[in-house]
Amino acid sequence: MSNNLFDFGMIGLGVMGRNLLLNMADHGFSVIGFDKDGAKNAALESAATPGTTVKGVGELSQMIQLLQRPRKVMMLVPAGQPVDDVITSLLPLLEEGDVIIDGGNSHYTDTLRRVKYLRDKNIHFMGIGVSGGEKGARTGPSIMPGGDKTAYEHVRPMLEAIAAKAEDGAPCVGYLGKVGAGHYVKMVHNGIEYAIMQLISESYAILKHAGLDNVQLHEVFKTWNEGKLQSFLVEITAEIFLQKDDKADGYLVDVISDKAGSKGTGKWTSQDSMELPVAVPVIDTAVAMRTLSGYKDERVEASKLYNKTEAVELASQELIDQAYDALYFATILSYAQGLAMLFQASKDLNMEIPLPEVVSVWRGGCIIRSSLLEVFTNAYKQNPELSNILLNQEVAELVKSAEDKTRSLVAFAAKSGVPAAGLMSTLAYFDAFKSERMPTNLIQAQRDYFGAHTYQRIDTPGTFHTEWGQP
Amino acid sequence: MSNNLFDFGMIGLGVMGRNLLLNMADHGFSVIGFDKDGAKNAALESAATPGTTVKGVGELSQMIQLLQRPRKVMMLVPAGQPVDDVITSLLPLLEEGDVIIDGGNSHYTDTLRRVKYLRDKNIHFMGIGVSGGEKGARTGPSIMPGGDKTAYEHVRPMLEAIAAKAEDGAPCVGYLGKVGAGHYVKMVHNGIEYAIMQLISESYAILKHAGLDNVQLHEVFKTWNEGKLQSFLVEITAEIFLQKDDKADGYLVDVISDKAGSKGTGKWTSQDSMELPVAVPVIDTAVAMRTLSGYKDERVEASKLYNKTEAVELASQELIDQAYDALYFATILSYAQGLAMLFQASKDLNMEIPLPEVVSVWRGGCIIRSSLLEVFTNAYKQNPELSNILLNQEVAELVKSAEDKTRSLVAFAAKSGVPAAGLMSTLAYFDAFKSERMPTNLIQAQRDYFGAHTYQRIDTPGTFHTEWGQP
Repeated sequence: MSNNLFDFGMIGLGVMGRNLLLNMADHGFSVIGFDKDGAKNAALESAATPGTTVKGVGELSQMIQLLQRPRKVMMLVPAGQPVDDVITSLLPLLEEGDVIIDGGNSHYTDTLRRVKYLRDKNIHFMGIGVSGGEKGARTGPSIMPGGDKTAYEHVRPMLEAIAAKAEDGAPCVGYLGKVGAGHYVKMVHNGIEYAIMQLISESYAILKHAGLDNVQLHEVFKTWNEGKLQSFLVEITAEIFLQKDDKADGYLVDVISDKAGSKGTGKWTSQDSMELPVAVPVIDTAVAMRTLSGYKDERVEASKLYNKTEAVELASQELIDQAYDALYFATILSYAQGLAMLFQASKDLNMEIPLPEVVSVWRGGCIIRSSLLEVFTNAYKQNPELSNILLNQEVAELVKSAEDKTRSLVAFAAKSGVPAAGLMSTLAYFDAFKSERMPTNLIQAQRDYFGAHTYQRIDTPGTFHTEWGQP
Repeated sequence: MSNNLFDFGMIGLGVMGRNLLLNMADHGFSVIGFDKDGAKNAALESAATPGTTVKGVGELSQMIQLLQRPRKVMMLVPAGQPVDDVITSLLPLLEEGDVIIDGGNSHYTDTLRRVKYLRDKNIHFMGIGVSGGEKGARTGPSIMPGGDKTAYEHVRPMLEAIAAKAEDGAPCVGYLGKVGAGHYVKMVHNGIEYAIMQLISESYAILKHAGLDNVQLHEVFKTWNEGKLQSFLVEITAEIFLQKDDKADGYLVDVISDKAGSKGTGKWTSQDSMELPVAVPVIDTAVAMRTLSGYKDERVEASKLYNKTEAVELASQELIDQAYDALYFATILSYAQGLAMLFQASKDLNMEIPLPEVVSVWRGGCIIRSSLLEVFTNAYKQNPELSNILLNQEVAELVKSAEDKTRSLVAFAAKSGVPAAGLMSTLAYFDAFKSERMPTNLIQAQRDYFGAHTYQRIDTPGTFHTEWGQP
């Protein structure tokens, strides 16, 4: 810390902001945080590792005065108006060439707007996605920066220092594209996260329906995490089943309400995919199922109207093996859809998102980290312009190896009445994706029939309309 | 036609605008249309039934001068800026109390904005959805008006005259709610239309995969249309299979490209459902499959990578019967999701949409008309505040009667590799909807584990957080 000025400033000392700062300090950077809440400033300082340089202040102007130039200031505040409010309060305090970073889950269109607004004032603005939860922020998150590349170079050393490290030692951070690319990549990351969480919940439902108790579920997911399904989400799922309930006998998972919450990034992913358009039906499905979970009263009423005693097959190793392959298959398909969306967005929104870098960054620290990301990293090494990872030979072999059991599992779900919207959705997407010819020719015929919307032919260029039903 | 002034004016004499005007004229109203394109004005007049009063003019001001007060002017122009342009050109010509109607597929938020803008100028603005295609416009469409109720009373006589008539003779038009309700209802109508078209295309794929030729497909759909699946879309599907190709030997459907088009209303339905939120996964799926149909190059590549010879079961009557029930089941589920969306939107967006009226209006003239709408009309008669038609006893019996064969058909699709995204999606929605307890408790546990997002319990009120994995 030369001349008593700090390397990095943080606005908003909630758990994420605090932990990111402490992480930087542990890596030798001097850091200062601002929060109106004095208790949070005190909490920041008292949590610092002895010997590190960490300060919390209650005045924004004081923090800005204490930063080295060009100043590097990150905010971690709720998306939306709060971000604009912080920018407004920062502007009179900053100078040309300073860097503002929005580390929250802002929608990328807001980031685009802010980049333009601040570019005119010669302030660098970057949107950066951060994944890993509180623990990740403290010990090594996955970091997804986008925007001004010069500004990125200013913060690169500290981001590389605090980021998670992949198995090969590479820091899980990288320049992920122009303008709003950081927040866009983080949004799609979260969409994939929604999908995989939905798929895991369906696997849980199927195995539970088949009679497995929490200890057995723990064993199954623990074993899965040691195999091809190794991932953060499968790992914590295994742990969740063992968590005892503090308030009562039994396991905590059984008394948690099934009304699922969300913060909106899954919804954005689906909505924005339709704008491009690119198909991400497993993310759409995950969003829909979280929504449906909130319609509790209607579900209770419907359960009385529709329920019937169903023959439950005993949990056989065969069923567990099918569920294993199905979750693997569907997880690959979830990444495939999300990455296909990034491929299309990169082109259509002119963000130049480097997909090889994206999957590399996701290898460590983030919620969707998994051993599959090493496979995808290899796939993009072979072809950085791969439009869909399903078109990579190695990925194809993995998918095909799990295909048959996935089909059996989906058929089992259909027959047994266990809801498996995500698993079914991925199989249906796969079957459509590998169709040289989809049955949508009939849809075109219908549209031309009732709306004169015209159609194209497979044998002749041009646009055609038919007076249908005329003799 | 008293004092040489016309009853109704139309801006935009494309096929829909022209046909609606001619329909009005046939019912005794004197009508005038404006189009910059002189050929369209001539076409309007020459197509008029002898003895009716129909005039086309090339100057907007001329048309306005020739209308009775309060003037009733409808526009049928493309959604978006063209609608605003027409309003701008109309304003200097109109007087307080006049009525402007937007009969196109505008997004309801645009309609909300225009209603407010014109209310300040004491001009009535109504958004009206019109369904039925060109033929319907000429002989009897389904009409979905929303907005100012006083304005509705001004145009009600002519709308009732030109609307399709349901089996009981009731005109398929009714006041469907405040401000943007007309366009909202039409949007969801189109969302349901997307879903049912997707489901029919999947039934086609399954039966074709099982070996049925076009003549046999025609027979199957024709038979279906005579039974519980009676509907406009099934009816035209049966006809489509018989259409011979003008350019070559064989049937037209086989040479139509499978890249499906869309005008955006399905996309809007999905996007807006997520805003409410309410789950309409079969509409999401239909939108995604149309999108995927456009990724032709990738599908062709994937077909080579993934294709394998599949055992094709011969078309048995059993499979056809399963497909029949599955399409019936999934069609009911599609209406259920769309109507549940309208129920929620009516409350959340304060539009006061009368669902009994909506299903009654849909009984005739529109693209999704079907014998099922009589069933739903009865259901809402029993309970106008029904939040989901699946909760009606009579509907439940119909659903349950088709449930078993639907399960078999979905299992068949999963095993045989025929893409059946929509059919699977409806079954999964059904199974989730009738779950007193969904497995989303696990999702809440995961969210609390990695993000401290908290959860609720089923046995104690409040919000809880757990330090997961602590001994």
